[in-house]
Amino acid sequence: MRKRPVHTFAPMPCPAFARLLLFLPLVGLTLADDGRVIPELRSDEARIERHILELSAFGANPGGGVSRVAFSQADVDGREYIRGLMLQAGLEVRIDTAGNLIGRRPGNADRGNADPGSPTLPPILIGSHIDSVPGGGNYDGNVGVIGAIEVAQVLHESGTRLRHPLEVAVFADEEGGLSGSRAMIGKLGPQALQAVSHSGLTIADGIRAIGGDPERLTEARRQPGDLAAFVELHIEQGAVLYDEGVDIGVVTGIVGIQWWEVIVTGVANHAGTTPMDKRQDALLAAAELILAVNRVITAEPGAQVGTVGRIAAEPGAPNVIPGRVVMSLELRDLSSETMLRVYRGIEAEALAIAGRSGTTIEFRHVDMDASPAPTDGRIRDLIAAAAANLGLSHKAMPSGAGHDAQDLAQIAPTGMIFVPSVAGVSHSPLEFTRPRDIANGANMLLHTVLAIDRGSLEQ
Amino acid sequence: MRKRPVHTFAPMPCPAFARLLLFLPLVGLTLADDGRVIPELRSDEARIERHILELSAFGANPGGGVSRVAFSQADVDGREYIRGLMLQAGLEVRIDTAGNLIGRRPGNADRGNADPGSPTLPPILIGSHIDSVPGGGNYDGNVGVIGAIEVAQVLHESGTRLRHPLEVAVFADEEGGLSGSRAMIGKLGPQALQAVSHSGLTIADGIRAIGGDPERLTEARRQPGDLAAFVELHIEQGAVLYDEGVDIGVVTGIVGIQWWEVIVTGVANHAGTTPMDKRQDALLAAAELILAVNRVITAEPGAQVGTVGRIAAEPGAPNVIPGRVVMSLELRDLSSETMLRVYRGIEAEALAIAGRSGTTIEFRHVDMDASPAPTDGRIRDLIAAAAANLGLSHKAMPSGAGHDAQDLAQIAPTGMIFVPSVAGVSHSPLEFTRPRDIANGANMLLHTVLAIDRGSLEQ
Repeated sequence: MRKRPVHTFAPMPCPAFARLLLFLPLVGLTLADDGRVIPELRSDEARIERHILELSAFGANPGGGVSRVAFSQADVDGREYIRGLMLQAGLEVRIDTAGNLIGRRPGNADRGNADPGSPTLPPILIGSHIDSVPGGGNYDGNVGVIGAIEVAQVLHESGTRLRHPLEVAVFADEEGGLSGSRAMIGKLGPQALQAVSHSGLTIADGIRAIGGDPERLTEARRQPGDLAAFVELHIEQGAVLYDEGVDIGVVTGIVGIQWWEVIVTGVANHAGTTPMDKRQDALLAAAELILAVNRVITAEPGAQVGTVGRIAAEPGAPNVIPGRVVMSLELRDLSSETMLRVYRGIEAEALAIAGRSGTTIEFRHVDMDASPAPTDGRIRDLIAAAAANLGLSHKAMPSGAGHDAQDLAQIAPTGMIFVPSVAGVSHSPLEFTRPRDIANGANMLLHTVLAIDRGSLEQ
Repeated sequence: MRKRPVHTFAPMPCPAFARLLLFLPLVGLTLADDGRVIPELRSDEARIERHILELSAFGANPGGGVSRVAFSQADVDGREYIRGLMLQAGLEVRIDTAGNLIGRRPGNADRGNADPGSPTLPPILIGSHIDSVPGGGNYDGNVGVIGAIEVAQVLHESGTRLRHPLEVAVFADEEGGLSGSRAMIGKLGPQALQAVSHSGLTIADGIRAIGGDPERLTEARRQPGDLAAFVELHIEQGAVLYDEGVDIGVVTGIVGIQWWEVIVTGVANHAGTTPMDKRQDALLAAAELILAVNRVITAEPGAQVGTVGRIAAEPGAPNVIPGRVVMSLELRDLSSETMLRVYRGIEAEALAIAGRSGTTIEFRHVDMDASPAPTDGRIRDLIAAAAANLGLSHKAMPSGAGHDAQDLAQIAPTGMIFVPSVAGVSHSPLEFTRPRDIANGANMLLHTVLAIDRGSLEQ
């Protein structure tokens, strides 16, 4: 492992030099609060790339990508690899009772050299996950974990002391239902623990398999106030940044998800003997509804999305008019009000369609426990400022996908940084984020942490 | 079994009585070609109802209806019951090599007492099937078989001699692909014989199980000219007659069926991170196409029908935009030209939809070997005349469902008589045809046979 020298500079209180300070950002130097000029801290793109590559070996599929589902041996091995990186970055490593792998860098307050009057400060938490969907890629989650470790490594190598402790988390089982972060906010219930994960293990047994203890889950819980902030770096998983050529997404929040099972009931009948005007075709009504869903959602400006992803027609024979269709309806938006308004619009369309087609249309709400999770406005501002300072273009945008950040947002000021996914591909072996963009993300995470540590949230 | 006396009347050449002959139809009497006055032959509604009921025991489901799939023990037992009815009706019973159960009543020509100069006449064939779909009802097929046996029984009991032999057929495996009638016209090929039927047996083994011999299938074959005519009585399986309160359907033909597998290919993507305007949603395009199918079919007058009965969206998760949809498209009409025109219209709509939605839409034709099969115009006229004589309302209509008649139409003048299905229900335990309507159908079959026998087709 290449070691960088620790840079320490003596204060240089030279008034004649003052004007030149304006140009420091251009040459990679910055001025600390105490007036010291220190080199601008930067992530090491080559190291990040190597770590991403090394991590991709755990659960690698022959055709590319990984299947490193939570609690599998690949997950256990991948976490062990990450533990090694954490130790190299000078972190104290532990596994909490929920199976979250946590590396800690003490803050100044912890070291007994806090400023007089400064109480022990809560940690700043950063991190993401390394578990994947089956047949997934090497960037979803991984970028946020490797980026967070890079932050710790850079701080370690530069000898930079933070006022707050810094914690780097690898959350357990993100893809299977945010299990680790959910436990961290005290919301992983007994029922979720008994669900069977892709590994074949229940979540409870899976947590045991990675070193946690589901019997003592409450010990993993963080209360409001326990964390100074949480910041997650992640790939966008969409094509907005990539298509628009923007470097950084300042995530405005993680959208809420509403999910319904929609049941269209008509009358199954013989496809040959039933004239067109005597049919009560459930699929014809369902098709109208699918178009109506799209129409209602796109009728108003905003980033709300809605999807019919699953459909089954019964009895499902080419020569029988469908008597029943069951399909999914999913709506996502940052605003619960918008989702409700869109849903009401769809409901009204469904009523009209049912009336016209001689069918009934029923919406059964499925509880997803996925309310909108807005990020903290102050952290968004810090992220935007960091982007400006780093010379990166940025754009405010919601996250359409779920993330551990949506859980942490319930107990801590939370921010989230997106970097582009090439062509928006995600959950696929073809998922790719350019090394430069990952390094940008790590720099963004680093400078956001530095800004938070400087007390920006305390003002 | 109640036996009716055989009515024979001596000629009554009484000129003074001549005017009264005009009123004979009103009192249930008719005048034979040779001037004899004979009672109008009528089916016995109570007997028919009893036979329908007795037949329904074979393969009866606890909740109603039957599952008497071809070649099952229930099918074998039901056929044995029918064999008994055939023997009671004075028929000579055999099973042909295709497994068709055939009862024969000799014609006058067979008995050696044909008119001088009258050659041996080919038989008039009537009949239908008694096999059912899984979870089927007690009328589809059964009505035509019990009705045909009633015709034989009435002729037997009344001592009515026909010039032509009369054959009553129970066709093998109608529901599984018209196997028996297809063999009868020489079109049951080796591939079809190896298909596995609902009974679990291949068609070949099934034919063996019911007394046929698939190795000698050609012996079951009838050539053009071998049959004077084929007439099938059947329930409508639709609601046209029932809704309009019409007694009898004069079937204009059995519609042809065209079937396509339609494949819509878009791009599967994350339902949360893909904005509405960046989607290539295969299901949204498929929904548009389903509506277009309905629009094109109903845009022109006619009885053509089209159905999308099966649909699958892939990957089929509520949180993934469908990247691929596979669905069935079935068109039916008496005219191949109409089907082609409608299909071209649908194709044109599909092209426009694909263009708008960034998808591709492919139609893969599935060979159904189900060309339109028009009935014989002369037999239609005889059926209509019989209805008028019997005081029954009638209506010309296509059969949207497939029947053994569509095969026989390829080698013989063919007619088909429909009686109403209550509410149009079919292939269901709720299938029902009123006893009066079944008796009407048997009377129609009887008088159509009598008219054909009188030589109406030879003129």
